[in-house]
Amino acid sequence: MPRFVMKRAQEKVGLTPGTLVHIGERKIEKVRIRIIDYDETQLEEKEVKTVEECFPFKDKPTITWINIDGLHDVEVIEKIGKQFDVHPLVLEDIVHTEQRPKLEDFGNHIFIVLKMLYYHKEKNELEPEQVSLIFGSNFVISFQERVGDIFEPLRERIRKGQGRVRKSASDYLAYALIDSIVDNYFVILEQLGELIEDAEQELATNPTVETLQSIRAFKKEMVFLRKSIWPLREVVNSLKGGELSLIHESTGIYLRDVYDHTIQIIDTVESYRDMLSGMLDVYLSSISNKMNEVMKVLTIFAAIFIPLTFFAGLYGMNFEFMPELKWHWGYFMILAIMVLIAALMLAYFRRKRWL
Amino acid sequence: MPRFVMKRAQEKVGLTPGTLVHIGERKIEKVRIRIIDYDETQLEEKEVKTVEECFPFKDKPTITWINIDGLHDVEVIEKIGKQFDVHPLVLEDIVHTEQRPKLEDFGNHIFIVLKMLYYHKEKNELEPEQVSLIFGSNFVISFQERVGDIFEPLRERIRKGQGRVRKSASDYLAYALIDSIVDNYFVILEQLGELIEDAEQELATNPTVETLQSIRAFKKEMVFLRKSIWPLREVVNSLKGGELSLIHESTGIYLRDVYDHTIQIIDTVESYRDMLSGMLDVYLSSISNKMNEVMKVLTIFAAIFIPLTFFAGLYGMNFEFMPELKWHWGYFMILAIMVLIAALMLAYFRRKRWL
Amino acid sequence: MPRFVMKRAQEKVGLTPGTLVHIGERKIEKVRIRIIDYDETQLEEKEVKTVEECFPFKDKPTITWINIDGLHDVEVIEKIGKQFDVHPLVLEDIVHTEQRPKLEDFGNHIFIVLKMLYYHKEKNELEPEQVSLIFGSNFVISFQERVGDIFEPLRERIRKGQGRVRKSASDYLAYALIDSIVDNYFVILEQLGELIEDAEQELATNPTVETLQSIRAFKKEMVFLRKSIWPLREVVNSLKGGELSLIHESTGIYLRDVYDHTIQIIDTVESYRDMLSGMLDVYLSSISNKMNEVMKVLTIFAAIFIPLTFFAGLYGMNFEFMPELKWHWGYFMILAIMVLIAALMLAYFRRKRWL
Amino acid sequence: MPRFVMKRAQEKVGLTPGTLVHIGERKIEKVRIRIIDYDETQLEEKEVKTVEECFPFKDKPTITWINIDGLHDVEVIEKIGKQFDVHPLVLEDIVHTEQRPKLEDFGNHIFIVLKMLYYHKEKNELEPEQVSLIFGSNFVISFQERVGDIFEPLRERIRKGQGRVRKSASDYLAYALIDSIVDNYFVILEQLGELIEDAEQELATNPTVETLQSIRAFKKEMVFLRKSIWPLREVVNSLKGGELSLIHESTGIYLRDVYDHTIQIIDTVESYRDMLSGMLDVYLSSISNKMNEVMKVLTIFAAIFIPLTFFAGLYGMNFEFMPELKWHWGYFMILAIMVLIAALMLAYFRRKRWL
Amino acid sequence: MPRFVMKRAQEKVGLTPGTLVHIGERKIEKVRIRIIDYDETQLEEKEVKTVEECFPFKDKPTITWINIDGLHDVEVIEKIGKQFDVHPLVLEDIVHTEQRPKLEDFGNHIFIVLKMLYYHKEKNELEPEQVSLIFGSNFVISFQERVGDIFEPLRERIRKGQGRVRKSASDYLAYALIDSIVDNYFVILEQLGELIEDAEQELATNPTVETLQSIRAFKKEMVFLRKSIWPLREVVNSLKGGELSLIHESTGIYLRDVYDHTIQIIDTVESYRDMLSGMLDVYLSSISNKMNEVMKVLTIFAAIFIPLTFFAGLYGMNFEFMPELKWHWGYFMILAIMVLIAALMLAYFRRKRWL
Repeated sequence: MPRFVMKRAQEKVGLTPGTLVHIGERKIEKVRIRIIDYDETQLEEKEVKTVEECFPFKDKPTITWINIDGLHDVEVIEKIGKQFDVHPLVLEDIVHTEQRPKLEDFGNHIFIVLKMLYYHKEKNELEPEQVSLIFGSNFVISFQERVGDIFEPLRERIRKGQGRVRKSASDYLAYALIDSIVDNYFVILEQLGELIEDAEQELATNPTVETLQSIRAFKKEMVFLRKSIWPLREVVNSLKGGELSLIHESTGIYLRDVYDHTIQIIDTVESYRDMLSGMLDVYLSSISNKMNEVMKVLTIFAAIFIPLTFFAGLYGMNFEFMPELKWHWGYFMILAIMVLIAALMLAYFRRKRWL
Repeated sequence: MPRFVMKRAQEKVGLTPGTLVHIGERKIEKVRIRIIDYDETQLEEKEVKTVEECFPFKDKPTITWINIDGLHDVEVIEKIGKQFDVHPLVLEDIVHTEQRPKLEDFGNHIFIVLKMLYYHKEKNELEPEQVSLIFGSNFVISFQERVGDIFEPLRERIRKGQGRVRKSASDYLAYALIDSIVDNYFVILEQLGELIEDAEQELATNPTVETLQSIRAFKKEMVFLRKSIWPLREVVNSLKGGELSLIHESTGIYLRDVYDHTIQIIDTVESYRDMLSGMLDVYLSSISNKMNEVMKVLTIFAAIFIPLTFFAGLYGMNFEFMPELKWHWGYFMILAIMVLIAALMLAYFRRKRWL
Repeated sequence: MPRFVMKRAQEKVGLTPGTLVHIGERKIEKVRIRIIDYDETQLEEKEVKTVEECFPFKDKPTITWINIDGLHDVEVIEKIGKQFDVHPLVLEDIVHTEQRPKLEDFGNHIFIVLKMLYYHKEKNELEPEQVSLIFGSNFVISFQERVGDIFEPLRERIRKGQGRVRKSASDYLAYALIDSIVDNYFVILEQLGELIEDAEQELATNPTVETLQSIRAFKKEMVFLRKSIWPLREVVNSLKGGELSLIHESTGIYLRDVYDHTIQIIDTVESYRDMLSGMLDVYLSSISNKMNEVMKVLTIFAAIFIPLTFFAGLYGMNFEFMPELKWHWGYFMILAIMVLIAALMLAYFRRKRWL
Repeated sequence: MPRFVMKRAQEKVGLTPGTLVHIGERKIEKVRIRIIDYDETQLEEKEVKTVEECFPFKDKPTITWINIDGLHDVEVIEKIGKQFDVHPLVLEDIVHTEQRPKLEDFGNHIFIVLKMLYYHKEKNELEPEQVSLIFGSNFVISFQERVGDIFEPLRERIRKGQGRVRKSASDYLAYALIDSIVDNYFVILEQLGELIEDAEQELATNPTVETLQSIRAFKKEMVFLRKSIWPLREVVNSLKGGELSLIHESTGIYLRDVYDHTIQIIDTVESYRDMLSGMLDVYLSSISNKMNEVMKVLTIFAAIFIPLTFFAGLYGMNFEFMPELKWHWGYFMILAIMVLIAALMLAYFRRKRWL
Repeated sequence: MPRFVMKRAQEKVGLTPGTLVHIGERKIEKVRIRIIDYDETQLEEKEVKTVEECFPFKDKPTITWINIDGLHDVEVIEKIGKQFDVHPLVLEDIVHTEQRPKLEDFGNHIFIVLKMLYYHKEKNELEPEQVSLIFGSNFVISFQERVGDIFEPLRERIRKGQGRVRKSASDYLAYALIDSIVDNYFVILEQLGELIEDAEQELATNPTVETLQSIRAFKKEMVFLRKSIWPLREVVNSLKGGELSLIHESTGIYLRDVYDHTIQIIDTVESYRDMLSGMLDVYLSSISNKMNEVMKVLTIFAAIFIPLTFFAGLYGMNFEFMPELKWHWGYFMILAIMVLIAALMLAYFRRKRWL
C-alpha cells in the first residue's frame, strides 16, 4: 500500500522548486561511482571516490558512461548536475524516487526516468527502484538507488567489444540500458505468471480465504505494474519517434524493438488481469457452491429424520386408548414404515441429484 | 452529497448573465486584502482596508500579487474587476464557488479557477475551496474563500528572495501558486491513503457493516477528487502548451513539472479506486464466508443430534411389544450406538474439512 | 420506458422524407404565437392569431423573436417554414418531437433542437419537451410543445432592457434561450440530487425492495439525462467553435460559459451514476447481511435446543433397565447438565460474536 | 448463436479470392429481377426473366433501378457484374451473405452492403437479411436475399412521382433505399422495446427463471443489433462526408438526416442495454430476497417450536422422582409457559420486522 | 497459462540484441525448405537440402516463394538472412516464436509476423504457431514452426495458374499467404462457436461446476485470440494503407477485403465474450436458484413436521393429571388436528408458490 502513495509529501510542500531533497528509502551505505569510457578502439574502466573525478570525461570525444549507485547524497548529484549543465528540476526528480517514468528533451541532453522492479518473495510484493538516465552526445549518466547487477551483462559486452555498442554512439548505450530494464520486466512477469498459475491450481482444488487474498494481492501488483509500464511505453515511444536529435536513425530499429517489448508486457499484464478477474468469479461461485453443499447435507438429514422422529413421537404419546400400541406387530410395522419413508426420501434426493 | 450538486441553482435561473451573486457558504467574516509588490531589488508588503488601495499598483512595472480572502462581498470583486478590465462573466465565476477548474485566456490576462481540498476529519469528507487566479503581465490576483496558510511558504520565499520567484515574471508567480495547490493534493492523498490502509486492515481482521460504509465513503471521495483533478490537469496542460503569450518559455519546464504531478495524482486516485473495488469484493465474499460458517455450525449440530434424537424417540414409543426394551443391556447398547453415530458424523465432517 | 423508444415509427415508415407529421403527445389545445420585436431603442410585443401576421417582421432590420407554443398544427409550421426559407427536413424535425439534440448550419440560418426536462413527481420520471430554434441574422423562431414559463425571465429582461440582450444581435438572443434551458438542467439535477440523498438515507436505515426500485428508477433517469445532455454539449460546442458565421465573436465568451455548464451537468450526472452504483452494492450486501442475521438466529436456537431435546428424549426412553431413572437426584442432575450445555453454547456463540 | 459466427467458413478456405460461392440460407425458389427506369417525365417498370434484359438500360441516360431478389444463382450475379464493370471481390461479397455493413468507392460506382433485420416471433430472434447496393451515375442495382415489401412504398412514390425522387439523380434513389432500411430499424426497436417492457413488468410481479432467460435473450439481440448498426453508421457517415463524387451536395442534408437516425438507433440500443443490465441486477437481488423470505419462515417455525418441543420432551422423561409431574396443575402450568414462550418469540420477530 | 507469458525470458536477459536464439518448442525434426519460382509463363518447384540452393533465386526476375518449415536451426535462418540483406533484429524476431503480430517496412523488403492458431481438442486450448513473412519485389520467404497444410491450396492454385496469383507481383503472393492465415481464424471461430453453443445448452439443462470451468476456459481462449487478432488487424491496416511502396495499387482491394475479415473476426470474438459473460451470470444465478430450491425443501419439511412433533411430544408428557389422555377419542382427535395442520401448511406453501 505505501507504494501507491507519494511518501513524505508533506515535508516537501512549500519548498522552493528545484530544492534537492532525497525522498525514498536509503538503500545503500555509500554512493558508488563507476565510469566506463570507450570508443571503438580503446576502453577505460574505473571506480572513483569523488564525483570530481568524473568531470574531465565531459569534454573527451569518447563515450563515457557514469553509473551512480545511491541517491541519498544530494551533494554528489548536485555537483555532477552542475558540471553537465542539468536543470535543477531534473536533479530534483532524480533524488525524488517516486517519479512516474518520463522523458524530457533538453536539446543537448535527454533526461529519462524509469522504474526497475524486483519481486520480493517474502512480502509477495514488487519493489520498485528508480533508474534515471541523462545522456548527451558523448556521455550517459545513470542513477540507481542501489548497486544492482542488471547492467553487468551490458558492461561485459562493452568490455569484450561484443555487439554494436562499442561501434555506436551514446544513444545506443542509452538504448542498451533501457533494453536491460525492459527485459527485466519479462523476468518479473514470468515469476508472477508461475505464482498466478499456482493460485489457479489451488483455486481448482481447495479454495480458501487465503486463495482470495493472494488473488487480490496479485491484482494489486498488476495495478502497480501498469503504473510503471504504461508511462514506460510512452517514454520508449518518444525515443523511437524520430523527433529527438540525439537519437540516430540506425538506433531506430532497436528502439522499435524495445517498444514492441513494452507492448508485449502491457498485453501480458492485461491478460493476467483478465485471468485474475476470472479467478475471482470462480472463487465467489465456489463459496456459493460450498454453501449449496452444506445446505444439501442439512436438508437431507432434516428431511429424512424429521418425519421419522415425528412418527416415533406419535407413538410415544400417552393416550389411554391408542389401538396400534396393543397390536403385536405394531412396533415392527412402524419400523417398516420408517424404513420405507427413509428409502423414499433417499430416492427423491437421488432423483434431484443431490446425492 | 450536497457537494455533488450545484447549490441554489434555482435562485440563479433567469438572472442576466454576468450578474454577481455569491453562491456558496460564507466562510469568513470580513474580506481581507493583502498586497505584495516586488521586483528583483525591492519589496513592499501590506494589508489594505479598501479595495481602492490596490488600484495604484496596476500601472507599476513591478509585479503585484493581490490576495483576496472572502468572496461574499461582491462589491469588492466588482470594483477590482472593473479596474483590471476583467470580463463580468469571469467575476461571476469567481463568486460562484461551484466552478469546474478551468482556464480562460483573454490575451492580456489569463483567468484560472482551481479547487483546493481539505480533509475534514469529523465528517470524513473532503471539503473544497475555490481558488481563482487572474494574472496579467505585471500582476496576479488570487481569490480564496477564506484565509488559508497554503500560500504562506511562497510568501516567505518572496520576502527572503529565495528561489527564482523574485527574478522572474508574473507567470512564475502564478506557477508557484498553482504548484502550492497541486502539492496540497499529495498531502490529501497521503491522508486518505493511510485511512484506506486502516480500512483494509479492518477488513482483513474484522469486517463489519461499518467497514463497508467507510469503503463506500472513500469511493465517494475518489469520485469527488476525480471531479477536481481531471479538469485541473487540463488547465495545467493548457498552461504548459506554449500557446499562451503570457507564459514565458523558461517557465515551461516548471509547468511541465506541475503537469507530471497532476498525472501522478490521477494515477494515485485510480490506484485507490482499484484498491477500493478490490476491498468491496473482499467484503462481499467475507459475508458469504461468514454465512458458510454459520450454516456449517447449524448443519453439524443438526446432522449429529437429529438422528440421535430419532433413536431416543424410537425407544420412547409405548408399543406393548418392543423386545429391545426388555433386554437388560438394551439401554447401554443404544447409548453405544448413539456414540458411534456421533463419532461417524464427526469423522465425516472432518473429512469434508468442515471442522 | 416509452421515453426510450421512438414512438409511432411504424406510421412513418415509407413516407416521403420531408412530409410533415406531428409525432408526439399533443400537449396543448391551440397553437399560440407570440412576437417580440426589438432593437436597442424600441420594442414591440404582441400575440398573433394567424401565422401570416409574423411575415412582415422577416424583412425588418430589428430583431424579431417569434415564439410558437404547440406543434400539432403542421400547417402553421409549414407556412412559417416557407416564409423563412427553411428546409422541409428541418420542419419535419421540428414536429417530430423525438429528435436527438442537434445543430444544423444552413449559412443564412441555424437550426437547433434541444430537450427541456421537467421532473414529474407522481410518475417519478423526467418528462422531455422538445424545443427547436431557428435563427437568422435578424430573427429567432422558437418552437415549444406547450406554453412554458422558462423563457419568461428572459422576456422580462428584454422588456426592461436589462443586460446585453437589447444591445446585441440575434445570436445573443439565441444564446440567452439556450442558457435558460441549460440552467433548467441544474434545477432538475438539484431535485434529483435531493431524492437520491433521501434514498441513500433510507438505504442506511431500512432498506426494502422499494429502495432497490427507486435506486433503479434513478439509474434509468440518469440514462435518460445522458441521452439529452451529451448531444446538447455537442450542440453548444459547435456554437462556441467560432466556425459559424452567424455567431459574433463577442458572444463567444457567453457560449463558452454555457459550455462549461453543460460539462458541469455531465460531471454531476456521472457522479450520480457512480453513487447509485455504490448504493446498489450496499443494497445487495444488506440483503446478504440480513440473511446472515436470520441464519444466526436459527443456528443459535437450533444449536442450543437440539442437544437439550436429545437429552430429554434420551430419558424418555422406555427401557426397563435405565439406572439413572431410579436415582433420586437424576432429574435435577439432568436439568443441571442441560443448563450447563445451554450456557456453554451461549458462551461459544458470544465468543464468535454472533450475539 | 449461429448468427454470431461466419457459416461454412471451412468450405471457403483456400478458394481463389473472387470465386463466387453463395454462402447463406437459400430463402426463395427463383431469382426475381425487377426494373424501374425513370426520369422526371417518363417511367418504365417491368419484371424480366433473364438478366440479359437488364443490359440495354446500362447506357440509357434515365435512372434505372434493378432489383434482384435471391442470391443463390451466382451466374445471374456474375453476368450483371460483368456488364456493369463490377470487381469480382464485390460480387463475392454480394453472394456471401455474412458481410459486415460497409461501403466501397470505385469512382464510377459505389458498393454498399447493409443488413435488414426482421423480428422472428417464434424464435424470439432477430433475423438478418443482407441487402447490397451498387450505384453509378445513372443506375442503382439492389440485391436482396428474398422478395420483401420494404421498398414497396418507395416504388409507389416513384410511380406516382411523389417527393423529390423522380426529379433527382441516382444518389437520391440510393439514399431513399438506405432510408427505408434504417427506418425499419425503428420498427424493430419498437417491437423489442415493448417486449422488454413486458419482461420488466414480469420481473416486478413474478420473476422466474424464464424471466432471466428472456433478459439474456434480449441482451444477445442487443449484441446482434450493435453488430449491424455500428458499421451501418460508418457507412452513412462516409456517404454524407462529401468526399464521394457520386453524391450530389443537395442529397447531403438527406444523408445527414439518415445519419442522425442511425445515431438515435445506437442511443436507443445503448439505453436498452443499460435497462437490461439493471433488470439483471433486480433479478439477482430478487433471488436473494426470496431466499431471505424462505429462511425467515424456517427460522420462525424453528425458533418457536424447537423450545416448545424441548419442554414437552422434558416432561416426557421417565425419572422416578420428578415433582412437577405430581402437581395437579402442572400440565396447565406448562401449557401456559409454552403459550408465553411462543408469544414472546412472535413479539421478538415482529420487532425485527420479520413478520 | 504458459501461452500468456514470454518463455525463457530469463535466458535472454543480457544477451546482445540481434543474437539468434530459438525460443519456443521445437516442433519438427528437420528444417524443410521448399521453393516455388514462377512467372506468368513458367513454374519451377523443388525441395532443397541446403539453404545455399535458395541463393541463386535472389536475382532472378521471376517471383520466388521460399517456404522454410522449422525454426530451431538458427544457422539456416542466419544464412538466408544475410543473403537477402535482412536486419539481425528481424532474424531474432523470426526465431523467437513469441512475437506479437507486427509489420516492419525496410523499403526494399517488408517483414511481417503473424500468428496461426490451431484448436487442440484434448487440451481444449488454442495453440499458436508463428508465421513470418519477408517479401521484396521478386521474392517471398515464409517461415513456419512446422510443416503445415494451410498453404497447400495456394500452392495448388499457383501450380495450376488459377486466379490472379501467377499474373501478379510478389505483393499479391504475400496477400494470398496472409489471406490463408486469416481464413483459418474463421475455422477456429466456427469450432469454438459450436463448443460455446454446447456449453450454453449444458448451462440451460444441467449446470455443473464443469460448466463454469469450461465457460472460464473459453473466456481465456478469447483473451488469447484477442491478443493475436488485434495486432493482426493493425498489420493488415498498414498493408492496405497505401503507404508501402512494395504494395501495388491493384492489390489494395484484396487487402481491404482481408481487413474487413479481420474486423469481422474481432466482432465475432467480442460477441463471444459478451455471450460468455452472460453465461457466467446465468451460472451464478443458477447456483442461487438451486440454493433456493434446497432451502424450500428444508423449510417445507421443517415447517410441517416440527409443529406436529411438538404436539406428539406434548401428549408424551408424563403429568399425572392430563385430562385429554383419558378421553376415548383423544388420540383420534389429535391425529385429526395434525392432519389439519399439515394440510394448512401445505396450502400456505402452495399459495406462496413454493410447491
